[in-house]
Amino acid sequence: MPRQQTAKSQKSATRVPINPQIRISFKKSIAMGPGKADLLDAIAATGSISAAGRKMQMSYRRAWLLVETMNACFREPLVETLIGGQHGGGARVTPLGEEVVRRYRQMEAKAARSVTREMAAFAALMAPGNV
Amino acid sequence: MPRQQTAKSQKSATRVPINPQIRISFKKSIAMGPGKADLLDAIAATGSISAAGRKMQMSYRRAWLLVETMNACFREPLVETLIGGQHGGGARVTPLGEEVVRRYRQMEAKAARSVTREMAAFAALMAPGNV
Repeated sequence: MPRQQTAKSQKSATRVPINPQIRISFKKSIAMGPGKADLLDAIAATGSISAAGRKMQMSYRRAWLLVETMNACFREPLVETLIGGQHGGGARVTPLGEEVVRRYRQMEAKAARSVTREMAAFAALMAPGNV
Repeated sequence: MPRQQTAKSQKSATRVPINPQIRISFKKSIAMGPGKADLLDAIAATGSISAAGRKMQMSYRRAWLLVETMNACFREPLVETLIGGQHGGGARVTPLGEEVVRRYRQMEAKAARSVTREMAAFAALMAPGNV
């Protein structure tokens, strides 16, 4: 198996960018995934769905739809909107929303760690210039 | 923490659909991901890039672009096209392509197993009707 010999002779193949992404489905919706987790972080950082959408280069409408989907998928809303604000008003991530993001990030990190060794072997199959 | 009590009182929360997806980057391209792995399987099954594209409801052009990206990211092509076929000709997945898909699927499965316990806890935060 010449291919495997090549793999073994590689100096270091541990730095391949691996991006394990977890998507959690609920009925036909994606309840939580990379984009929604980032949106929650952005809402927490900006206090606003519209500002968070701009930060993520998505339309206000799209940001709202993602928030609506998330809120419908969990036992309680992950994002609360505040009445009275202008242009969409303010918004905040609820304690449940914070917990969901925290657990989601932990799962992402754990999933990535679980395949560290396999990724090193995989990296040796890739074209030079990557490692 | 009423939320956690609610979580514990759930009968079973282990069947939430989790879909850990791994994307492997190479420079600015995604070298391997869920769509490309499925495309390789479809090419292996149909012996044709165009038939594989139809099976995955993507355009011939898109299927070709995905194949070109994959082939450029690895040490050798993952897909070989056969000269002389009509309308795109035949294609086959190379031994390296088979190895890449196999390793990719193994990583996906291992990543999923690594977060089984966390997913059960996460599921308890989701709206009823999912488990």
